[in-house]
Amino acid sequence: MSMKGKALFTFQSENKEEISIQENEELVIFDNNSVDGWLQGENSKGQKGLFPASYVEVIRPRSNSNMTDCSISPEGSPGNGSSYFPSTANTPFHMQQGYYHDNDDDWDDWDDSSTVVDDDGPNGTNGHSHQSPHSNNPNVHYCAKPYMERQDIISSSRKGSMVGRNLNRFSSFVRSGVEAFVLGDVPMNAKIAESYTIAMGPKGPQWKESPTPFSCSIEDPTKQTKFKGIKTYISYRHFDWLYNRLLHKFTIISVPHLPEKQATGRFGDDFIEKRKRRLILWMDHMTSHPVLSQYEGFEHFLMCADDKQWKLGKRRAEKDEMMGANFMLTFQIPNEHQDLQDVEERVDSFKTFTKKMDDSVMQLTHVASELVQKHLGGFRKEFQRLGNAFQNVSQAFMLDPPHCSESLNTAISHTGRTYENIGEMFAEQPNYDLFHMLDKLSLYQGLLANFPDIIHLQKGAFAKVKESQRMSDEGKMDQDEADGVCKRFRTVGFALQAEINHFHQRREVDFKEMMQAYLKQQIAFYQRVGQQLERTLHIYDNL
Amino acid sequence: MSMKGKALFTFQSENKEEISIQENEELVIFDNNSVDGWLQGENSKGQKGLFPASYVEVIRPRSNSNMTDCSISPEGSPGNGSSYFPSTANTPFHMQQGYYHDNDDDWDDWDDSSTVVDDDGPNGTNGHSHQSPHSNNPNVHYCAKPYMERQDIISSSRKGSMVGRNLNRFSSFVRSGVEAFVLGDVPMNAKIAESYTIAMGPKGPQWKESPTPFSCSIEDPTKQTKFKGIKTYISYRHFDWLYNRLLHKFTIISVPHLPEKQATGRFGDDFIEKRKRRLILWMDHMTSHPVLSQYEGFEHFLMCADDKQWKLGKRRAEKDEMMGANFMLTFQIPNEHQDLQDVEERVDSFKTFTKKMDDSVMQLTHVASELVQKHLGGFRKEFQRLGNAFQNVSQAFMLDPPHCSESLNTAISHTGRTYENIGEMFAEQPNYDLFHMLDKLSLYQGLLANFPDIIHLQKGAFAKVKESQRMSDEGKMDQDEADGVCKRFRTVGFALQAEINHFHQRREVDFKEMMQAYLKQQIAFYQRVGQQLERTLHIYDNL
Repeated sequence: MSMKGKALFTFQSENKEEISIQENEELVIFDNNSVDGWLQGENSKGQKGLFPASYVEVIRPRSNSNMTDCSISPEGSPGNGSSYFPSTANTPFHMQQGYYHDNDDDWDDWDDSSTVVDDDGPNGTNGHSHQSPHSNNPNVHYCAKPYMERQDIISSSRKGSMVGRNLNRFSSFVRSGVEAFVLGDVPMNAKIAESYTIAMGPKGPQWKESPTPFSCSIEDPTKQTKFKGIKTYISYRHFDWLYNRLLHKFTIISVPHLPEKQATGRFGDDFIEKRKRRLILWMDHMTSHPVLSQYEGFEHFLMCADDKQWKLGKRRAEKDEMMGANFMLTFQIPNEHQDLQDVEERVDSFKTFTKKMDDSVMQLTHVASELVQKHLGGFRKEFQRLGNAFQNVSQAFMLDPPHCSESLNTAISHTGRTYENIGEMFAEQPNYDLFHMLDKLSLYQGLLANFPDIIHLQKGAFAKVKESQRMSDEGKMDQDEADGVCKRFRTVGFALQAEINHFHQRREVDFKEMMQAYLKQQIAFYQRVGQQLERTLHIYDNL
Repeated sequence: MSMKGKALFTFQSENKEEISIQENEELVIFDNNSVDGWLQGENSKGQKGLFPASYVEVIRPRSNSNMTDCSISPEGSPGNGSSYFPSTANTPFHMQQGYYHDNDDDWDDWDDSSTVVDDDGPNGTNGHSHQSPHSNNPNVHYCAKPYMERQDIISSSRKGSMVGRNLNRFSSFVRSGVEAFVLGDVPMNAKIAESYTIAMGPKGPQWKESPTPFSCSIEDPTKQTKFKGIKTYISYRHFDWLYNRLLHKFTIISVPHLPEKQATGRFGDDFIEKRKRRLILWMDHMTSHPVLSQYEGFEHFLMCADDKQWKLGKRRAEKDEMMGANFMLTFQIPNEHQDLQDVEERVDSFKTFTKKMDDSVMQLTHVASELVQKHLGGFRKEFQRLGNAFQNVSQAFMLDPPHCSESLNTAISHTGRTYENIGEMFAEQPNYDLFHMLDKLSLYQGLLANFPDIIHLQKGAFAKVKESQRMSDEGKMDQDEADGVCKRFRTVGFALQAEINHFHQRREVDFKEMMQAYLKQQIAFYQRVGQQLERTLHIYDNL
């Protein structure tokens, strides 16, 4: 249902899906359910596209019904929690609140119903499932960003990934606190216990390594029994808590989403295995990040052994004031001068890179997923059918007794079994190679998904710098104040460059390791197949 | 169009597709176009099925048209030589005559239009294409049996192979001359220049080896230029001539059909290659048969160097009187007594075996053909897509210059090319293994396709023995005459057992060789793939 709206602020489009709107411009809004903070509509020039919901005032039509918009499902039927298409738009408000604010300290199994809002499920590619009708609610700041676990949804990669990823770049700019930080609106009202140093390295700014690096290993996270001691205490929900703390504290650092949860209630061994591998990868990535790994929440997460300890540590960690905007105060940056335009170009180059890398990671994920399916299906089937056909030939040869040539039949029958076995080997092989590749690609999808938002923070901050300089030039702002904006912007720039640098370092290590591991397993596989066939061939030698 | 008919003789059904008919029984005939000598209809008991056309008199309805039945195509449209569905029913009579009798000595290319009647083409599975409306014509004795080249028609193997194979067992019995031979109706009017000895071996009767064994090699048979000398003289049409001579002379020996011709005018290198390989296999099989290889036509076929020689030799060979029934006079059998019932069981056992072997060869052919398609299609595509995805990752990595890690990108790009190459290796591999397997299976399909007819000759002859014994017992036949039938039947039994023995010997050698060759090529393939991957892996070592 279309309705009218008015632009509260001017917005300049950056992508082809977006349209520019001018302050006070009248707009047509096609659907007032915003998707990740964006609305679809038409401006006064007749251009159709997306613009930030928070930049617009919706002029609501008179309604004959008391039914609120958010209780109407996209399909036009009343909200239905058991719908095959999970949709946050259908979820009662209190459930979302309950989840995001984690008020109830309810440690039931991680797959209980209160987590449904973060559960994209296999239909997560449906644009509607990312609807967040309450993003206008100023109380919901620390809303976990919905994400698509794309690699398991092959079809989604054909549709493009615009929806559900980069749509909330404006809302994230507003809520990240970077704007407030750059404008000097963050009061130094807390003592800064933390400090993260950025130094100049051979390839530009880089994070100083953590003084206390560590790593951890993870047992199967679903097999926990509550209150049974440290080794089995941590459950998926603890990971969820940790992820959300990291996400909200470490503005401008890319915190990849957690491995997906199961869409339905039941989950098999394969799924548990996959999630375990991916949690290990995720944790490994977190604990090897020079900044993230220093987060005190890790100690709490890793060391606490029972529910009481957990609650205490959790409350302490949640009192952390150095979140978001305040976190920006913790950086120690080099004195070195960097030309702002150079930094801008540096960021643009990285932006182009991430887009292409995201595409290629998506493509490789898609191809590897299909290859898994072929291994489990087509390859196995073809070789098993060949094996079966050989066995049938052997059986036929036994039917004319004076000429049943037993040793030849045995050899042919064995050949049949060998090919049936090779079929099974093909089906098993993804366990040794493709799954690990997909795990790593999934982690990188999570990392890459954050960069458009992070880059947008830097772009927004740069816009503030230019605006303040202009105002200063026009005498509308003190030069000191404009210099302060510029100085604080330097921190944003250094931090982003350090994060870019870190990303590239990890990427090189990870992709080298990924390719080597894949090739090694592939070589071993083809050798095993060859050896099986050689043993089979030798049976014919003695005929 | 249904019409009435009358059974001229009693026929006992042997297969579930057939129905029994009694002499003088009235029948309904569903379509008076016989298929391989068989008609479909209904007997007076209401049973529907097949019976031999030559056992039935069709009572034709009055027709308002002068159009003969054989000029009406199965689709109801007038005969059309360029129809996509080649059908002998559509071919004017003089063309078939011209082909079978080879009156015109026209040595145009083998694919000229006058050969269309033997050209099943890719739609040979269509029952109508096997129609032989002139099988009632007593002058067409030596009609080349239409065959299905089944292995190239995957779909046909799903339909079952009843139609087009075993339907002419009665007509073959009649026209083979075995009946006449057993009944003593073959006059000794020619001097018997040939003699083939059957001896008792460890597994029963066997052909005595040829005193002058030989083998020959074949150059590409399509590249001939006429009159250019011995090496390039032989064309496909010469093979056709040889095949027909062998087929008509060597009753009860399985002469496999020639490799198929091309359905359409154009033919590619792959097709020429395949036909060449299969002609070599066919020739190798013919020249290694203890009886067939002694045929004087081989000398003519192999030695003649020009058209004049060819015509002379051809006419000489076609004056051979030791064809069909007369050929049966050439056998020297052991004196050893064989119990007729034992022989019968021996033949039944072989019949069961051939049926199962035919099924399993068909299945393996089907599976191997599909595997070829997978190699050319699915396997190639999957690996090439993987290679392409790796290359795209490498290209993305080059987009952020300060971090473009050139050596890693080179390694990943090389990995991409390696997998593209592996895709090509998969597509090439059938040239080294599956095609040879399919060639041999095709030969065996040809061999096996003849056995139902050959076994039927023996069964028909055995029925004559029992009939003559009964008549002798009832005093309706001289004991001497009945003993003559029995004695001549022994010759048929010995010859068939020798042929069975020979078939098994060749089968063991051929299938052992086929399996070994396949496994060797498979091993070499997986080793090559492994080596390619190893070389690629080493590139990462130096990063």
